[in-house]
Order: sequence, then structure tokens, then C-alpha cells
Amino acid sequence: MKATGVVVEHNPFHNGHFYHIKESRKKTAADIIIAVMSGNFLQRGEPALVDKWCRTEMALKAGVDIVIELPYVFATAQASDFARGAITLLEAMECDAFCFGSEEGTIEPFTRSYEVLTTQQEAYQNSIKQYMNLGLSYPKALNEAYADITKDLNFSFVDLSKPNNILGYHYIEAAFHMKARIQPVTIQRIVANYHDDVDQNQSIASATGIRKALFEEGSLEALEKFMPQTSLDQLLKWKDSVSVFGSWQQFWPLLRHTIIRSSIQDLASFAEVTEGIEHLIYEAAKESETFEEFMIRVKSKRYTWTRIQRMLTHIYTGFKWETLKEHPKPTYLRVLGMTQNGQKYLSEKKKNLSLPLVSRVAATKDSLLEIDIRASDLYQLGLQSSKINTPVGMDYRKPPIIL
Amino acid sequence: MKATGVVVEHNPFHNGHFYHIKESRKKTAADIIIAVMSGNFLQRGEPALVDKWCRTEMALKAGVDIVIELPYVFATAQASDFARGAITLLEAMECDAFCFGSEEGTIEPFTRSYEVLTTQQEAYQNSIKQYMNLGLSYPKALNEAYADITKDLNFSFVDLSKPNNILGYHYIEAAFHMKARIQPVTIQRIVANYHDDVDQNQSIASATGIRKALFEEGSLEALEKFMPQTSLDQLLKWKDSVSVFGSWQQFWPLLRHTIIRSSIQDLASFAEVTEGIEHLIYEAAKESETFEEFMIRVKSKRYTWTRIQRMLTHIYTGFKWETLKEHPKPTYLRVLGMTQNGQKYLSEKKKNLSLPLVSRVAATKDSLLEIDIRASDLYQLGLQSSKINTPVGMDYRKPPIIL
Repeated sequence: MKATGVVVEHNPFHNGHFYHIKESRKKTAADIIIAVMSGNFLQRGEPALVDKWCRTEMALKAGVDIVIELPYVFATAQASDFARGAITLLEAMECDAFCFGSEEGTIEPFTRSYEVLTTQQEAYQNSIKQYMNLGLSYPKALNEAYADITKDLNFSFVDLSKPNNILGYHYIEAAFHMKARIQPVTIQRIVANYHDDVDQNQSIASATGIRKALFEEGSLEALEKFMPQTSLDQLLKWKDSVSVFGSWQQFWPLLRHTIIRSSIQDLASFAEVTEGIEHLIYEAAKESETFEEFMIRVKSKRYTWTRIQRMLTHIYTGFKWETLKEHPKPTYLRVLGMTQNGQKYLSEKKKNLSLPLVSRVAATKDSLLEIDIRASDLYQLGLQSSKINTPVGMDYRKPPIIL
Repeated sequence: MKATGVVVEHNPFHNGHFYHIKESRKKTAADIIIAVMSGNFLQRGEPALVDKWCRTEMALKAGVDIVIELPYVFATAQASDFARGAITLLEAMECDAFCFGSEEGTIEPFTRSYEVLTTQQEAYQNSIKQYMNLGLSYPKALNEAYADITKDLNFSFVDLSKPNNILGYHYIEAAFHMKARIQPVTIQRIVANYHDDVDQNQSIASATGIRKALFEEGSLEALEKFMPQTSLDQLLKWKDSVSVFGSWQQFWPLLRHTIIRSSIQDLASFAEVTEGIEHLIYEAAKESETFEEFMIRVKSKRYTWTRIQRMLTHIYTGFKWETLKEHPKPTYLRVLGMTQNGQKYLSEKKKNLSLPLVSRVAATKDSLLEIDIRASDLYQLGLQSSKINTPVGMDYRKPPIIL
């Protein structure tokens, strides 16, 4: 069986994701699609709208055959670590290819860029430093240095100012670095840009736009045309049983308590908290009744919104990089769910997989897995919904979803 | 002006406290009564029913002239540290006497016990160890050793199996150890025992009984005959403005989140958490939806309820003894409120006080005071009442109450 991997968050699953899965299958002639999916906290440093099991069901009902959890430490990390974790898992799952959506749409510019940047590593880094010394921000310096290095060459290179191209580049870098067997493939992203609001005349909207519409309107029906019916059904089921959706707004009382309880030194020790921002975070938490107020106080040119949110995620979950060795690698394949087709693939490949398959968490002792379990529990507590009967320990109780 | 000190929690202020204040004044012919009062967390390891300002008003309206805050580190410590902190503050306030309620009722048995136990320190400690080796718990071993040491002497000694006698003994020990000028005085406690439930035929009930009645009945009117009208008015005002009362039940979502977010190693580092109980605390928090469930899981013969609650208090507030040097001493006199009589006393004595007076927190930098401020903030967050407009930073905004 031929397998193609995708890296997803599905927060929530929408028509764009549906297109991505369908096209990935078609373009690579795959028998099965394996998704590596973030757990309950996402790369933008946010709690997921609905938990990983709900999102797994959405994926399985819309074309994905196996869902593997991307462990917390990768799912909430910056792009290079995120990509390294995801590609390692897809490689370990014996995928033949991985397919990502990009603004670019063809793979050659990515590989060419990788070659140029790798062979001219030193010149590139020096150039970045020079631009930063001139006062440019890191992303801007990166772009300028990249433009300098590629401008005199007679090939087309990938535009690394576009968000999905950047992520795609990191996937390729990860795969090439680890000399992976897995082949990179890309498809063109269509219609919605990353942050675009929902436009009722389009049937593809960004997940950010969908979340915004959901929190503002409160009604799920308005989302009908932007997602498969199976996904909408999952959201409706969640709303019935849990009643609230995950967001920092919802988690704010607990996050605020966590910040104020911490000493300044302690705050500074969490992953990505650097350069004195802990003082600002502490004072802003004291003064802010809502998450919005808090972010207005903390946000500055120096840090992106996403970067700040990732700090908050780590503060909320108590995660410190120092508890792990540098650049940890994935150590297990946690199956969140599969179709019968996925099950067939797994029994076929089981013996060749280079990482242990985890379907029963209780039977496994692993420091990365412990972090995932804690993050799940703290996510459930953040929802603080009186409708949830068994908010914590779900990782121990939930077997993989089988469709 | 002659001042007598009392050590109080007033959680809430009731007729027994009223009697204590009145008798202390009478017995010592005091012009003013100075109360050292615990802040928002109490010696039994619980959040106070109402905050320290509300309790200060209760005290001032019922006969107390000055309320000084007992800093968090003493207020939530075991009896000997609690007593040392309180007596140090009363001595620093230039009190002539301190007066405590006891089952004993006269002071000589206390001082005699102190003398015997101090002169026979070594024999006493050895005897305790022997009894513990026989399998007795520490409090029981203490009682047996004490009985052995006093049984052949022709004096009456204080019965150190009674809770108020024990606390009184610690006050006297603290005062004698520090060679304080302040004189110990005791009055007999009347009627209610510490844990007695409210009996509608008595007009004195224990604070524990009153709190129980309050949480069970939900109506404050039933408490009318057990407390001065001024105290009941304060409780009614609190209920109107805050709507909930402080309790671990109320604080459970935040406490639970805090425990689950912590690593086992981290839990073990909080004050009083020893001997592996951190594992039990962690697992019980995961399994328990309510504070009651949690305590049933954690409680064992090994630890008293109070001891466990003190651990929880420190986990909740993030307090670690290691951040302080051993056996810290009070470093300031934080005035929570005073009557005009109290003000007169302060302006008379101001220049002689051995510790700095703090009425504006923002102007003072002190590590013990920072702990108090954090504890206040975390108390307010624990109430989680949408009715509170300014839940944190109250220490900075509230000037001393002047009646």
C-alpha cells in the first residue's frame, strides 16, 4: 500500500483541508493518507477549538486514514522544530511521500532554495546579521539576505515571505537533513489566505476566519458552506456535550492565575520567554481582566503575536525545554485514530516501523508522552465546562478512534 | 496608653471573639486592643471566608483598635512559627500584655510547663523519640512524654492535649525565647469547642461551626445570634458585592489546575510537602472533580487534615520556604485598619516602634510583603466572582481602614 503523509492542525477541518487531502491522494496516487496532527495546543500558541479526538474524527470522516499525534514539544515549537517532528513521524510511518500546500505550488523552487541556502550557509548567515545590524527585524533581514543570495541566479526560487512556503521549506529542510526516504510534494493552496475573514461567497475560508466567525456569531450554521457536513456535525456534537470552545479567552482565568502565582524568575524559565518579557507578562496579567486587554499590554514590535502566544502556552502547561535534552526527537507513534483501511496499512507495516506504536498510553513510559498527557489534561481543565464529566485522564481512557 | 495584644483570625468574627476582646481589655485594664490578624490564608491551611479587609472592619467595629496583618509565612505556618511571628509583632507594637483564650484559663500552669520542658529539654526529646519508636504518632508521643515528665511534680501543669492550650503554650514559648517585655495573660474560653457545630440554643458557636452552617444553609440570617450585628452586616455586604465565600470548594478549579500543571518534583518542593505525598496529591487531583473527593483520596493517618491543607495553601500560592532564609522574622508592621483611638496610640508610639510601619504597600520593598501581596491576589482570583471589578492589586490600592 502506498502512503502519503500530511501535516495538519484541522482547527477546525474545513473545505481547504478537504481539498488538501483529496489532491494529496490524487497527485501521489496514494492508497492511504496519514496525517500527523497537533494535539490540544497549536503552533500559533493557542488551545485548539476542540480537542484532538474531535479533530481526529473530523479528519477520518473526510479522507484521512490514520491520525498520528504530533507531540506537544513539536506541535507548539517554532517552524523548524515543528517540521522536524512532523517529518520524522511521517518517515517512521513508512510514508512514500508527504504533500503540503504552498503558495508556490511546485516543488523544484523549494529544493533549489534548499540547495543554495545550504551551500552558501555562511554567506547567508553573515548577510542576515548585517541586515539586523542595520535595524531590520529577523524575518525582514532573512528576506533581504535571501533576495541577495538568489537574485543573480538563473532559476526560480521559492518566495520565502509567504507563510505556507516558509513552512514547506522547513519540511523539505527537515527531510533533506535527516536524509529521509520520504519524497516531498506540494500542491497549490487555493483561494483563502491564512488570515482572511470568512467571505460568504467563497466556499473555502481560512481556519482563522472560521474560528473568528464562530466566536463572533456564536452560531455554527453560518459555517455550513465552509466545511464538510461531517465536520460541522462534529462541531455541533462538541457544542452539545462540552458547550464551550477552546480559546485563550476561555482559558484566561487559569492562565492569569498561573502567571500571577509564578515568580518572575520562574516565568523567565519557560520555553521561549526571553529578554525580560517576563516582567511585562507578569504586570499585564495583574492589570488585565480579559485576554484581549492582556495582549494589548504585552504586544510590541519586538515579538509576534504567535511568539507571545507560544510563551503563554508553555507557561500555561508548565513546559520548560530544560527538562529535555536539546533537539529531542520523536520517540513514539501515538495513533489517535484510523479507518479500516488505515488499520490494514498498520498491520502490514507494523513490524518495519522505526518507532514504537502507542495505542495504550498507560502501558508506555516516555517523557515526551507525559508532556502530551499533561497538556491534554490542562486543556480539558481550561474549558471549565460543567458539562464535562471526565475532564482529565482522557489520554488513559480513550482508545484510538476506529472508523 | 496601655495596649494589650491579641492574635486572631476572625473567620468570621463571632460572639466568642467579642467576649475575648472585651475580657482581654478588662483583665489587663487596657486602653487599646491591638490584633495581629492573619491575611487571606489561615493557619488551618484554608482561604479565609472573606478577605482581610472585610475581617478588619469586623474587628474594628467590635472592639479592636488596631489591626496588624500577620504575614503569610507566619499565618500559614505550624504553631511555633505562627506564634513567633505574632508575638514578635505585638512586642514590636509596644504592647504591655497579650491575652489569649485557653481551656486552662490561668497563666501559671503555662509558665510552669515552659520551665519544666525547657530545663528538661533533652530528656523530653528522648522520651518523645522512644514513644515514636513504639509506633505512636508525633502528637501522641508528645503527650505521653509530657505526662511522664510532669507526673511526679507537685504542681499543676497545663493540659497540652487541648488545642487552645497548645497554641497558648507556643505564644508563651515564643515570648520567653525572645525575652520579650510583653506579659502573657490568659482567659478561660467559654462554651464552644473548636469544632462544635452550631447549636441554636447557644449564643457562642465556634468559627468552624459557623462556617459550616453558612455553607450548608446558604442563609446568613441563621447566624444572627452567634455574632455581633456589625459582623453580620459585613458578611451581608460581602455577599452582596462578591457573591461567593472563600473556601477550597470554591478555589478547587484553580488549585486542581495548579497541581496537575506541576511536575512531581515541583510539587515536592513546596513548604511542608514531604515524604512522597506529592505523588498522592498529584494522582488524587487528576481523579477528583471536587475538593471533597480529593481530600478523601489524600487523607491518611499520617497527616492531619490541617497539615494537608497547609501543603495545598503553599502549592496554591506557589510559596516555597527555600526562597527565604531559615526562621525569618517579621520585618514590618502592616496596618490593615484602626479606630481613632488606635490612631492616637500610633502617633504616640510611632517613633519607638522597633519595626517600620507600612500603610502604603507600593512604597515598600520587602520579600515577606511581596508574598503577602501575591497571596492576596491569588485569593481574589480564587473567588472567581464576576462581581468583583478589581480582583487583584488590592494591596496597592486599599489604604488602611480608619473607623
